[in-house]
Amino acid sequence: MQIAVLLYDRFTALDAVGPYEILGRIPGAEVVFTAVRPGPVRSDLGSLALTADATLSEVTAPDVLLVPGGPGTADLLADRAVLDWIRGVDAGTDWTTSVCSGSLLLAAAGLLTGRRATSHWIALEHLAALGAVPAPERVVVDGKYATAAGVSAGIDLALQLTGRIAGDETARAVQLVVEYDPQPPYDAGSTAKAPAELVAALRASGLAVG
Amino acid sequence: MQIAVLLYDRFTALDAVGPYEILGRIPGAEVVFTAVRPGPVRSDLGSLALTADATLSEVTAPDVLLVPGGPGTADLLADRAVLDWIRGVDAGTDWTTSVCSGSLLLAAAGLLTGRRATSHWIALEHLAALGAVPAPERVVVDGKYATAAGVSAGIDLALQLTGRIAGDETARAVQLVVEYDPQPPYDAGSTAKAPAELVAALRASGLAVG
Repeated sequence: MQIAVLLYDRFTALDAVGPYEILGRIPGAEVVFTAVRPGPVRSDLGSLALTADATLSEVTAPDVLLVPGGPGTADLLADRAVLDWIRGVDAGTDWTTSVCSGSLLLAAAGLLTGRRATSHWIALEHLAALGAVPAPERVVVDGKYATAAGVSAGIDLALQLTGRIAGDETARAVQLVVEYDPQPPYDAGSTAKAPAELVAALRASGLAVG
Repeated sequence: MQIAVLLYDRFTALDAVGPYEILGRIPGAEVVFTAVRPGPVRSDLGSLALTADATLSEVTAPDVLLVPGGPGTADLLADRAVLDWIRGVDAGTDWTTSVCSGSLLLAAAGLLTGRRATSHWIALEHLAALGAVPAPERVVVDGKYATAAGVSAGIDLALQLTGRIAGDETARAVQLVVEYDPQPPYDAGSTAKAPAELVAALRASGLAVG
């Protein structure tokens, strides 16, 4: 089972690495990080680069596609080559997935038209503008399209996907191996839980996600 | 504020990237990924490399040190150069931190002797053998030493640290930006919660962490 993770300038690192750490542990999984050009690809914060080991043209038939989000998605919404690649490989995937604003790229490629999907809370309305039906849930599965909310939500998406691909027992084993028993010291991880002033301040800040 | 993240062959990617995604968003934070040699460093699953932008000798005075875990720690427990570097930079840090089996390296460097610390559940007894007082908690803070349990626990550690470094308000803002409102689809993320047979099977498998 090949899992392709798309990289591009100014992606958000945890969007890619969270799901990778889970899905990459499914027995038989072979993960390939891919980008327009091979080599290091810088994430949004600038201080980290992940290596793309394959060009897009070398990755033609992944079983699972994962598109992370990040401020860099804005540059790709009209990038014909990348959107064509997404659409092309989607034709053969078992699962086409995204984290955060990665769903905007799936939508821009025409894959989410009329489908329920999610994204980072700050990007949900963009998702609607691109033809999807935005759902403010942490993980949304509509057919073979599985989308996650912002950044850290990719971990929950990947565990759910692991269960569907390899069974509950394998998913539980992976959860225990990565000791995923979250205990956040604050409870501000969603717009419903965070102080309203904080949500408003972040909306007003022009936050690029993410 | 400089935050140094140590990379080495066969580290676990999420151990490094989870905390990076949180700590790197503290205003004024400058993160540097560092390794013995600069360039791509492969993580334990083999399919992902992170770029080390600086050699250890170029990173002499970070304010925060983060040591991720991974099967590769086993090769470093007697690596004089790496342990000397850890000990050397620790002399000037405000916080010296680890995720998963990264605490074994801190302990091997002599920094955790008599201190409470944690690690991946499968590595806790090794931690005791290296002089620390193992505590089976998700995040343990003893003085300036903050250690996290396995892999995903680094996210909780980093949020807690963000609060201590930059205040609760900043920590909540970062939590909302990365939408950290975990909803694991299974409840098997700790040895207390996972089925006993699964814990036993993983112990018997010679699992290298992680």
